[in-house]
Amino acid sequence: MEGDSIHKYKRGVINNFVSVDCVIFGFDFNRLNVLLVDRVLIDESTGEEIVNDLTLTGNHIYENEDLDEAAARILFDLTGLEDIYLKQFKAFGSPTRISREKDKIWLKASGRNPEDRIVTVGYYSLLDIDQVTLQWKGRDVRWTPVAEVTDLGFDHVDILNEALKELRKDLIREPIGFELLPEKFTLSHLQRVYEVILGVNLDKRNFRKKVARMKYLRQLDEKQVGVAHKPARLYTFDKDTYEATRRELLDFAI
Amino acid sequence: MEGDSIHKYKRGVINNFVSVDCVIFGFDFNRLNVLLVDRVLIDESTGEEIVNDLTLTGNHIYENEDLDEAAARILFDLTGLEDIYLKQFKAFGSPTRISREKDKIWLKASGRNPEDRIVTVGYYSLLDIDQVTLQWKGRDVRWTPVAEVTDLGFDHVDILNEALKELRKDLIREPIGFELLPEKFTLSHLQRVYEVILGVNLDKRNFRKKVARMKYLRQLDEKQVGVAHKPARLYTFDKDTYEATRRELLDFAI
Repeated sequence: MEGDSIHKYKRGVINNFVSVDCVIFGFDFNRLNVLLVDRVLIDESTGEEIVNDLTLTGNHIYENEDLDEAAARILFDLTGLEDIYLKQFKAFGSPTRISREKDKIWLKASGRNPEDRIVTVGYYSLLDIDQVTLQWKGRDVRWTPVAEVTDLGFDHVDILNEALKELRKDLIREPIGFELLPEKFTLSHLQRVYEVILGVNLDKRNFRKKVARMKYLRQLDEKQVGVAHKPARLYTFDKDTYEATRRELLDFAI
Repeated sequence: MEGDSIHKYKRGVINNFVSVDCVIFGFDFNRLNVLLVDRVLIDESTGEEIVNDLTLTGNHIYENEDLDEAAARILFDLTGLEDIYLKQFKAFGSPTRISREKDKIWLKASGRNPEDRIVTVGYYSLLDIDQVTLQWKGRDVRWTPVAEVTDLGFDHVDILNEALKELRKDLIREPIGFELLPEKFTLSHLQRVYEVILGVNLDKRNFRKKVARMKYLRQLDEKQVGVAHKPARLYTFDKDTYEATRRELLDFAI
């Protein structure tokens, strides 16, 4: 907390009325995770925990920052990563966003007025969990399986659900799944990406029939090496073909 | 101006830091229009026009309003229409949003501090121009062809361009074009919807080949009546089929 605050005030004046919340999804081949931060408040006189839960990672915007810049700063502070795709998906501005007692207590303890209206702008990002080293100093951040999230501070469960909807919509419309795969991959790996993110099990035959229609999925004259089982055929994502068919799509597609 | 202000203060306390801007597209079979409002400021001593341009329709949010509610209120104030689909498409928060002199003069004259940071949330809507009666009292609102818009107040040209991108993306992915057609329509009418909104001319044969793939476009056993030319076949949008194929798409589509 201490380090976080000092860091923050160095960066500029805070705009108390607008914040940015980042839903940072972390993919591994087992499940979809989201980056959450511990929110713990202890009564100094009694030693009792007043607040102890989790929230999304977010922050107020600074006066000299655009919204995208605030989101990029939060992601950088958490992961050290720059130039990562962050998609703004929705602004949340319900007047009852901050209505639970523990949220008000938390804001008051952070020196804010819980009666202030805060509109927050949601961004999501999708990272390969193995490529990330978490580093938010002073607060405990951790990957949590999305399926295990039941409650979060403020309206962050709603924000997470909206982000998940957007991610899944984007996954079936854009080739974002390929970003999570190495240059050469098997169809089983590709299937796993869709299964993990969509949260479903897919029929293998049906899946292969569908991906056969992806013009930008190019079959290579290579197979896996160094695997114990029968080596599978390798594929690659053909960006040029994708861009070409995409242009055609935007020319006029229904 | 006067009437607008009185009306506004009756509604509740204003949040000066967040606004909503509505990009209300008006369709007719000739072109795509957008609803703009006159922004005129006259120096009372000299009678000289200090500001005279156009902006999108927008307003600050009230303390008791959610963002969607503010957008619906603006649309209602302009058209008297309720329950119209308004899509939130992006929040705009650049610290340099208000940097032009005329924008600052306008805000100052409206009793606001031009140095305040205002984040605005963009919504778009698509209406059939013939179904709408404009009614914003005290300000001059008017339909303007999108293709003729060159400059607007604040960053409203950017907001308009982003809305247009979103509308076009939605048009080629969702059956929103059908909302602008009567229950029974010809393929020429359908083609015109796509041409007007996408701002392109489409090849008739190519278009018909593409729409033949729309499972939810149902050919009727009827033709136009009362037309001077050879009557064309009528079609209808089959919502049930659309919902069914859409579910299938979301089950797993690539």
